[in-house]
Amino acid sequence: MTEPSQQLLMTLTGHTAPVISCQFSPDGKKIASASYDGTVRIWDAADGKLLQKLEGPMSAVFYCVFSSDGRKVASLSRDGAVRVWDVETGKLMHTLYDQADKVYHCAFSPDGKKIATASHDGLVRIWDADTGKLLQTLAGHKKAVLSCEFSPDGKRLVTVSSDKTVKVWEA
Amino acid sequence: MTEPSQQLLMTLTGHTAPVISCQFSPDGKKIASASYDGTVRIWDAADGKLLQKLEGPMSAVFYCVFSSDGRKVASLSRDGAVRVWDVETGKLMHTLYDQADKVYHCAFSPDGKKIATASHDGLVRIWDADTGKLLQTLAGHKKAVLSCEFSPDGKRLVTVSSDKTVKVWEA
Repeated sequence: MTEPSQQLLMTLTGHTAPVISCQFSPDGKKIASASYDGTVRIWDAADGKLLQKLEGPMSAVFYCVFSSDGRKVASLSRDGAVRVWDVETGKLMHTLYDQADKVYHCAFSPDGKKIATASHDGLVRIWDADTGKLLQTLAGHKKAVLSCEFSPDGKRLVTVSSDKTVKVWEA
Repeated sequence: MTEPSQQLLMTLTGHTAPVISCQFSPDGKKIASASYDGTVRIWDAADGKLLQKLEGPMSAVFYCVFSSDGRKVASLSRDGAVRVWDVETGKLMHTLYDQADKVYHCAFSPDGKKIATASHDGLVRIWDADTGKLLQTLAGHKKAVLSCEFSPDGKRLVTVSSDKTVKVWEA
Protein backbone atom coordinates (compact mmCIF):
# COMPACT_ATOMS: atom_id res chain seq x y z
CA MET A 1 0.00 0.00 0.00
CA THR A 2 1.20 3.49 -0.80
CA GLU A 3 0.75 6.39 1.60
CA PRO A 4 -2.72 7.93 1.87
CA SER A 5 -3.20 10.22 -1.09
CA GLN A 6 -3.03 13.97 -0.75
CA GLN A 7 -6.02 14.02 -3.04
CA LEU A 8 -8.27 12.73 -0.26
CA LEU A 9 -10.61 15.58 0.66
CA MET A 10 -12.99 13.96 3.16
CA THR A 11 -13.81 10.69 4.88
CA LEU A 12 -17.48 10.40 5.78
CA THR A 13 -18.03 8.06 8.71
CA GLY A 14 -21.19 6.73 10.33
CA HIS A 15 -22.21 3.69 8.33
CA THR A 16 -21.88 0.57 10.45
CA ALA A 17 -21.47 -1.95 7.61
CA PRO A 18 -19.95 -2.02 4.12
CA VAL A 19 -21.10 0.76 1.82
CA ILE A 20 -22.15 -0.56 -1.57
CA SER A 21 -23.38 2.28 -3.75
CA CYS A 22 -22.78 6.02 -3.98
CA GLN A 23 -23.81 8.91 -6.17
CA PHE A 24 -23.52 12.68 -6.37
CA SER A 25 -26.80 14.54 -6.77
CA PRO A 26 -27.22 16.00 -10.26
CA ASP A 27 -26.28 19.48 -8.97
CA GLY A 28 -23.19 18.05 -7.27
CA LYS A 29 -24.17 19.44 -3.87
CA LYS A 30 -25.11 16.21 -2.13
CA ILE A 31 -23.85 12.65 -1.94
CA ALA A 32 -26.02 9.58 -1.31
CA SER A 33 -24.51 6.37 0.06
CA ALA A 34 -26.25 3.00 0.50
CA SER A 35 -25.05 0.43 3.00
CA TYR A 36 -25.59 -3.06 4.24
CA ASP A 37 -26.34 -1.36 7.59
CA GLY A 38 -29.86 -0.79 6.21
CA THR A 39 -29.57 2.95 5.71
CA VAL A 40 -29.05 5.42 2.92
CA ARG A 41 -27.24 8.54 4.08
CA ILE A 42 -27.32 11.93 2.42
CA TRP A 43 -24.22 14.05 2.90
CA ASP A 44 -23.34 17.64 2.12
CA ALA A 45 -20.75 17.31 -0.64
CA ALA A 46 -19.04 20.55 0.37
CA ASP A 47 -18.31 19.86 4.04
CA GLY A 48 -19.22 16.19 4.52
CA LYS A 49 -21.95 16.93 7.05
CA LEU A 50 -24.64 14.26 7.42
CA LEU A 51 -27.89 15.79 6.14
CA GLN A 52 -30.27 12.85 6.34
CA LYS A 53 -30.23 9.25 7.47
CA LEU A 54 -32.87 7.39 5.51
CA GLU A 55 -33.94 4.39 7.51
CA GLY A 56 -37.00 2.30 7.91
CA PRO A 57 -37.86 -1.36 8.00
CA MET A 58 -35.01 -2.06 5.62
CA SER A 59 -32.55 -4.86 5.28
CA ALA A 60 -29.21 -4.34 3.57
CA VAL A 61 -29.37 -1.62 0.92
CA PHE A 62 -27.36 -2.29 -2.21
CA TYR A 63 -28.28 0.56 -4.55
CA CYS A 64 -29.43 4.15 -4.39
CA VAL A 65 -30.08 6.68 -7.10
CA PHE A 66 -31.13 10.33 -7.23
CA SER A 67 -33.95 11.59 -9.44
CA SER A 68 -32.84 14.15 -12.01
CA ASP A 69 -34.05 17.08 -9.89
CA GLY A 70 -32.19 15.70 -6.88
CA ARG A 71 -35.30 15.83 -4.71
CA LYS A 72 -35.94 12.10 -4.49
CA VAL A 73 -33.74 9.09 -3.88
CA ALA A 74 -34.76 5.51 -4.65
CA SER A 75 -33.21 2.68 -2.66
CA LEU A 76 -33.06 -1.03 -3.38
CA SER A 77 -32.74 -3.43 -0.48
CA ARG A 78 -32.47 -7.14 0.11
CA ASP A 79 -36.04 -7.31 1.38
CA GLY A 80 -37.15 -6.89 -2.23
CA ALA A 81 -38.59 -3.41 -1.88
CA VAL A 82 -37.87 -0.20 -3.70
CA ARG A 83 -38.28 2.78 -1.42
CA VAL A 84 -38.63 6.37 -2.56
CA TRP A 85 -37.43 9.07 -0.18
CA ASP A 86 -37.80 12.83 0.05
CA VAL A 87 -34.21 14.04 0.19
CA GLU A 88 -35.06 17.36 1.87
CA THR A 89 -37.09 15.94 4.75
CA GLY A 90 -35.60 12.45 4.88
CA LYS A 91 -39.10 10.98 4.90
CA LEU A 92 -40.14 7.76 3.21
CA MET A 93 -42.55 8.71 0.41
CA HIS A 94 -43.46 5.26 -0.91
CA THR A 95 -42.56 1.62 -0.69
CA LEU A 96 -42.87 0.02 -4.11
CA TYR A 97 -43.30 -3.68 -4.54
CA ASP A 98 -43.12 -4.69 -0.93
CA GLN A 99 -43.19 -8.39 -1.71
CA ALA A 100 -40.89 -11.29 -1.19
CA ASP A 101 -39.57 -11.31 -4.74
CA LYS A 102 -36.25 -9.74 -5.46
CA VAL A 103 -35.84 -6.50 -7.38
CA TYR A 104 -32.46 -6.38 -9.11
CA HIS A 105 -32.43 -2.84 -10.40
CA CYS A 106 -34.46 0.34 -10.63
CA ALA A 107 -34.20 3.46 -12.74
CA PHE A 108 -35.81 6.89 -12.69
CA SER A 109 -37.17 8.27 -15.95
CA PRO A 110 -35.19 11.33 -17.07
CA ASP A 111 -37.97 13.66 -15.87
CA GLY A 112 -38.01 11.93 -12.46
CA LYS A 113 -41.73 11.18 -12.65
CA LYS A 114 -41.52 7.43 -13.14
CA ILE A 115 -39.50 4.56 -11.73
CA ALA A 116 -38.95 1.28 -13.57
CA THR A 117 -38.14 -1.88 -11.61
CA ALA A 118 -36.53 -5.09 -12.87
CA SER A 119 -37.72 -8.10 -10.95
CA HIS A 120 -36.92 -11.74 -10.36
CA ASP A 121 -40.46 -12.68 -11.41
CA GLY A 122 -39.68 -11.70 -15.01
CA LEU A 123 -41.82 -8.59 -14.94
CA VAL A 124 -40.87 -4.98 -15.46
CA ARG A 125 -43.01 -2.52 -13.54
CA ILE A 126 -43.35 1.20 -14.08
CA TRP A 127 -44.44 3.28 -11.10
CA ASP A 128 -45.47 6.87 -10.53
CA ALA A 129 -42.57 8.20 -8.48
CA ASP A 130 -44.70 10.86 -6.80
CA THR A 131 -47.74 8.79 -5.82
CA GLY A 132 -46.20 5.31 -5.65
CA LYS A 133 -48.97 3.98 -7.89
CA LEU A 134 -48.23 1.09 -10.24
CA LEU A 135 -48.73 2.45 -13.76
CA GLN A 136 -47.74 -0.44 -16.02
CA THR A 137 -46.62 -4.05 -15.86
CA LEU A 138 -44.51 -5.15 -18.80
CA ALA A 139 -44.63 -8.89 -19.42
CA GLY A 140 -42.50 -10.72 -21.96
CA HIS A 141 -39.24 -11.81 -20.38
CA LYS A 142 -39.21 -15.51 -19.60
CA LYS A 143 -36.83 -15.31 -16.65
CA ALA A 144 -35.59 -12.77 -14.11
CA VAL A 145 -35.11 -9.22 -15.37
CA LEU A 146 -31.67 -8.10 -14.22
CA SER A 147 -31.48 -4.47 -15.29
CA CYS A 148 -33.48 -1.65 -16.85
CA GLU A 149 -32.69 1.83 -18.15
CA PHE A 150 -34.78 4.56 -19.74
CA SER A 151 -33.75 6.16 -23.03
CA PRO A 152 -32.48 9.75 -22.68
CA ASP A 153 -35.80 11.09 -24.02
CA GLY A 154 -37.74 8.93 -21.54
CA LYS A 155 -39.89 7.40 -24.27
CA ARG A 156 -38.40 3.93 -24.20
CA LEU A 157 -37.05 1.43 -21.73
CA VAL A 158 -34.40 -1.23 -22.32
CA THR A 159 -34.39 -4.36 -20.17
CA VAL A 160 -32.10 -7.38 -19.97
CA SER A 161 -32.76 -10.80 -18.56
CA SER A 162 -31.56 -14.23 -17.52
CA ASP A 163 -33.55 -15.37 -20.58
CA LYS A 164 -30.57 -14.10 -22.67
CA THR A 165 -32.57 -11.38 -24.43
CA VAL A 166 -32.57 -7.61 -24.52
CA LYS A 167 -36.02 -6.03 -24.87
CA VAL A 168 -37.01 -2.50 -25.80
CA TRP A 169 -40.38 -1.17 -24.63
CA GLU A 170 -42.50 1.90 -25.00
CA ALA A 171 -42.27 3.58 -21.63
CA MET B 1 -48.20 -14.08 -15.93
CA THR B 2 -50.17 -11.63 -17.99
CA GLU B 3 -50.11 -11.60 -21.78
CA PRO B 4 -47.03 -10.15 -23.48
CA SER B 5 -47.36 -6.40 -23.40
CA GLN B 6 -48.33 -4.41 -26.45
CA GLN B 7 -45.67 -1.99 -25.36
CA LEU B 8 -42.92 -4.40 -26.36
CA LEU B 9 -41.17 -2.87 -29.38
CA MET B 10 -38.25 -5.25 -29.97
CA THR B 11 -36.57 -8.35 -28.65
CA LEU B 12 -32.84 -8.43 -29.40
CA THR B 13 -31.49 -11.96 -29.50
CA GLY B 14 -27.97 -13.31 -29.86
CA HIS B 15 -26.52 -13.41 -26.37
CA THR B 16 -25.93 -16.99 -25.29
CA ALA B 17 -26.08 -16.44 -21.53
CA PRO B 18 -27.89 -14.14 -19.08
CA VAL B 19 -27.62 -10.44 -19.88
CA ILE B 20 -26.68 -8.44 -16.80
CA SER B 21 -26.33 -4.78 -17.73
CA CYS B 22 -27.74 -2.46 -20.37
CA GLN B 23 -27.63 1.20 -21.30
CA PHE B 24 -28.75 3.57 -24.02
CA SER B 25 -26.02 5.71 -25.54
CA PRO B 26 -26.29 9.37 -24.48
CA ASP B 27 -27.84 10.29 -27.86
CA GLY B 28 -30.34 7.43 -27.53
CA LYS B 29 -29.34 5.88 -30.85
CA LYS B 30 -27.52 2.81 -29.59
CA ILE B 31 -27.95 0.24 -26.86
CA ALA B 32 -25.11 -1.63 -25.14
CA SER B 33 -25.73 -4.95 -23.39
CA ALA B 34 -23.27 -6.96 -21.27
CA SER B 35 -23.60 -10.69 -20.78
CA TYR B 36 -22.18 -13.65 -18.95
CA ASP B 37 -21.47 -14.98 -22.46
CA GLY B 38 -18.33 -12.82 -22.39
CA THR B 39 -19.49 -10.23 -24.90
CA VAL B 40 -20.82 -6.71 -24.96
CA ARG B 41 -23.15 -6.11 -27.90
CA ILE B 42 -23.97 -2.77 -29.43
CA TRP B 43 -27.41 -2.54 -31.04
CA ASP B 44 -29.14 0.04 -33.20
CA ALA B 45 -31.86 1.39 -30.91
CA ALA B 46 -34.11 2.21 -33.86
CA ASP B 47 -34.28 -1.17 -35.59
CA GLY B 48 -32.55 -3.57 -33.20
CA LYS B 49 -29.80 -4.46 -35.65
CA LEU B 50 -26.57 -5.77 -34.11
CA LEU B 51 -23.90 -3.15 -34.82
CA GLN B 52 -20.92 -4.56 -32.93
CA LYS B 53 -20.07 -7.61 -30.90
CA LEU B 54 -17.28 -6.67 -28.51
CA GLU B 55 -15.39 -9.77 -27.60
CA GLY B 56 -11.91 -10.69 -26.56
CA PRO B 57 -10.27 -12.79 -23.91
CA MET B 58 -13.14 -12.03 -21.59
CA SER B 59 -14.93 -13.99 -18.97
CA ALA B 60 -18.46 -13.10 -17.92
CA VAL B 61 -19.18 -9.39 -18.34
CA PHE B 62 -21.30 -7.84 -15.61
CA TYR B 63 -21.28 -4.13 -16.40
CA CYS B 64 -20.93 -1.82 -19.37
CA VAL B 65 -21.14 1.94 -19.65
CA PHE B 66 -20.94 4.48 -22.47
CA SER B 67 -18.71 7.54 -22.33
CA SER B 68 -20.62 10.83 -22.53
CA ASP B 69 -19.87 11.25 -26.25
CA GLY B 70 -21.05 7.69 -26.92
CA ARG B 71 -17.83 6.79 -28.72
CA LYS B 72 -16.38 4.51 -26.08
CA VAL B 73 -17.78 1.72 -23.93
CA ALA B 74 -16.09 0.37 -20.81
CA SER B 75 -16.76 -3.21 -19.75
CA LEU B 76 -16.18 -4.94 -16.44
CA SER B 77 -15.66 -8.68 -16.41
CA ARG B 78 -15.06 -11.44 -13.92
CA ASP B 79 -11.41 -11.74 -14.97
CA GLY B 80 -10.82 -8.47 -13.10
CA ALA B 81 -10.13 -6.32 -16.15
CA VAL B 82 -11.73 -3.14 -17.37
CA ARG B 83 -11.74 -2.99 -21.14
CA VAL B 84 -12.31 0.13 -23.20
CA TRP B 85 -13.83 -0.30 -26.65
CA ASP B 86 -14.26 1.88 -29.70
CA VAL B 87 -18.00 1.72 -30.35
CA GLU B 88 -17.73 2.63 -34.04
CA THR B 89 -15.15 0.02 -35.01
CA GLY B 90 -15.80 -2.53 -32.26
CA LYS B 91 -12.10 -2.68 -31.52
CA LEU B 92 -10.55 -3.10 -28.09
CA MET B 93 -8.72 0.13 -27.28
CA HIS B 94 -7.22 -0.75 -23.90
CA THR B 95 -7.26 -3.30 -21.16
CA LEU B 96 -6.96 -1.61 -17.79
CA TYR B 97 -5.79 -3.45 -14.73
CA ASP B 98 -5.36 -6.84 -16.22
CA GLN B 99 -4.54 -8.44 -12.90
CA ALA B 100 -6.07 -11.12 -10.78
CA ASP B 101 -7.76 -8.72 -8.38
CA LYS B 102 -11.38 -7.94 -8.79
CA VAL B 103 -12.70 -4.60 -10.00
CA TYR B 104 -16.19 -3.93 -8.63
CA HIS B 105 -17.13 -0.81 -10.52
CA CYS B 106 -15.87 1.73 -13.00
CA ALA B 107 -17.03 5.19 -14.03
CA PHE B 108 -16.20 7.58 -16.85
CA SER B 109 -15.52 11.20 -15.97
CA PRO B 110 -18.24 13.48 -17.39
CA ASP B 111 -15.93 14.58 -20.23
CA GLY B 112 -15.16 10.94 -21.09
CA LYS B 113 -11.41 11.44 -20.78
CA LYS B 114 -10.83 9.50 -17.59
CA ILE B 115 -12.02 6.24 -16.07
CA ALA B 116 -12.03 5.53 -12.33
CA THR B 117 -11.92 1.95 -11.08
CA ALA B 118 -12.92 0.60 -7.65
CA SER B 119 -10.90 -2.42 -6.69
CA HIS B 120 -10.83 -5.25 -4.21
CA ASP B 121 -7.29 -4.26 -3.20
CA GLY B 122 -8.64 -1.07 -1.57
CA LEU B 123 -7.23 1.23 -4.22
CA VAL B 124 -8.99 3.60 -6.56
CA ARG B 125 -7.26 4.10 -9.88
CA ILE B 126 -7.80 6.84 -12.42
CA TRP B 127 -6.89 6.05 -16.02
CA ASP B 128 -6.60 8.01 -19.22
CA ALA B 129 -9.51 6.62 -21.23
CA ASP B 130 -7.85 7.42 -24.57
CA THR B 131 -4.35 6.09 -23.92
CA GLY B 132 -5.05 3.49 -21.22
CA LYS B 133 -2.31 5.02 -19.06
CA LEU B 134 -2.64 4.90 -15.28
CA LEU B 135 -2.82 8.53 -14.13
CA GLN B 136 -3.37 8.28 -10.38
CA THR B 137 -3.65 5.73 -7.60
CA LEU B 138 -5.78 6.86 -4.67
CA ALA B 139 -4.90 5.08 -1.43
CA GLY B 140 -6.82 5.44 1.81
CA HIS B 141 -9.60 2.87 1.98
CA LYS B 142 -8.72 0.01 4.31
CA LYS B 143 -10.77 -2.64 2.54
CA ALA B 144 -12.27 -3.31 -0.90
CA VAL B 145 -13.63 -0.30 -2.77
CA LEU B 146 -17.10 -1.24 -3.99
CA SER B 147 -18.20 1.72 -6.08
CA CYS B 148 -17.04 5.07 -7.43
CA GLU B 149 -18.71 8.00 -9.19
CA PHE B 150 -17.44 11.34 -10.47
CA SER B 151 -19.13 14.59 -9.50
CA PRO B 152 -21.11 16.21 -12.32
CA ASP B 153 -18.32 18.78 -12.86
CA GLY B 154 -15.72 16.00 -12.98
CA LYS B 155 -13.58 17.61 -10.30
CA ARG B 156 -14.24 15.15 -7.53
CA LEU B 157 -14.75 11.45 -7.05
CA VAL B 158 -16.81 9.71 -4.38
CA THR B 159 -15.91 6.16 -3.36
CA VAL B 160 -17.45 3.66 -0.93
CA SER B 161 -15.91 0.66 0.70
CA SER B 162 -16.20 -2.46 2.81
CA ASP B 163 -14.34 -0.39 5.42
CA LYS B 164 -17.73 1.34 6.07
CA THR B 165 -16.56 4.76 4.92
CA VAL B 166 -17.41 7.12 2.09
CA LYS B 167 -14.44 9.09 0.74
CA VAL B 168 -14.34 12.17 -1.47
CA TRP B 169 -11.26 12.80 -3.58
CA GLU B 170 -9.89 15.42 -5.89
CA ALA B 171 -10.15 13.81 -9.30
